[in-house]
Amino acid sequence: MTQQASKLVIVTEKLLLKKIVKIIDEAGATGYTVLEAGGKGSRNVRSSGQPTVSDTTSNIKIEVLTADRDMAVKISDQVAAQFFDNYSGITYLCDVMEVLHAHKF
Amino acid sequence: MTQQASKLVIVTEKLLLKKIVKIIDEAGATGYTVLEAGGKGSRNVRSSGQPTVSDTTSNIKIEVLTADRDMAVKISDQVAAQFFDNYSGITYLCDVMEVLHAHKF
Amino acid sequence: MTQQASKLVIVTEKLLLKKIVKIIDEAGATGYTVLEAGGKGSRNVRSSGQPTVSDTTSNIKIEVLTADRDMAVKISDQVAAQFFDNYSGITYLCDVMEVLHAHKF
Repeated sequence: MTQQASKLVIVTEKLLLKKIVKIIDEAGATGYTVLEAGGKGSRNVRSSGQPTVSDTTSNIKIEVLTADRDMAVKISDQVAAQFFDNYSGITYLCDVMEVLHAHKF
Repeated sequence: MTQQASKLVIVTEKLLLKKIVKIIDEAGATGYTVLEAGGKGSRNVRSSGQPTVSDTTSNIKIEVLTADRDMAVKISDQVAAQFFDNYSGITYLCDVMEVLHAHKF
Repeated sequence: MTQQASKLVIVTEKLLLKKIVKIIDEAGATGYTVLEAGGKGSRNVRSSGQPTVSDTTSNIKIEVLTADRDMAVKISDQVAAQFFDNYSGITYLCDVMEVLHAHKF
């Protein structure tokens, strides 16, 4: 039941969620997790100075478990190409992990 | 003060939170973090098609720092055995990390 | 465009957010992500027993991407020295990752 995987993390602006989910689905990933987030890097926070607690809901963090690094890079490349000229965002990869159990994910 | 640890991540349906916390406590873990989450894999999202921003609060992501891999696997096995026949969920392990400081966690 | 990085994770009480962000900025980190969180380790949860879903908003989880381990340790040392005598908190480091794309982060 144990398997290796890569975790791709995408942090970007909330309004991009549906379009990014479409990219993830079309790449063939079987699951992802979405979390509301804030932080430096969102355009609002940069323009208004210090972040506040309310900034914790201006961004999203999407985590995608992929079977291999290639799928993660493919998703990342598409997200960056389509959105990172005009929107804040970062994508990064966590290499070492182990999926223990998965059901309907 | 530096120490190795494993991080077990559990993403599942929010209504299971209290029961999973009980498993974590009984396994002897000293701390965990709970985050509200959404994403593909929750039964609602699967049945209704595209996720929306409101889906970001239908699931939970629980992160448990454990002293070793054995405790993480034990918690994961119990969570999967009790809930993953009937509920969406995934558990995975991040192996490489280093706890720098901890207070009351 | 690919580069190595460290991810420092800080989980602590929400009221410390602005002060911790100041430490992160002054250390020269170019970005961070803030997520609302709960869990065992917050003083409220410890004193009242079982956590509830509402506890998921009493803490914050801050993730800081740093160019090297030294900057992460420096931030962690300052946060722990200033706050962890009086507040719940944990800091840990995820070593292995790869930044794929970043824009305005």
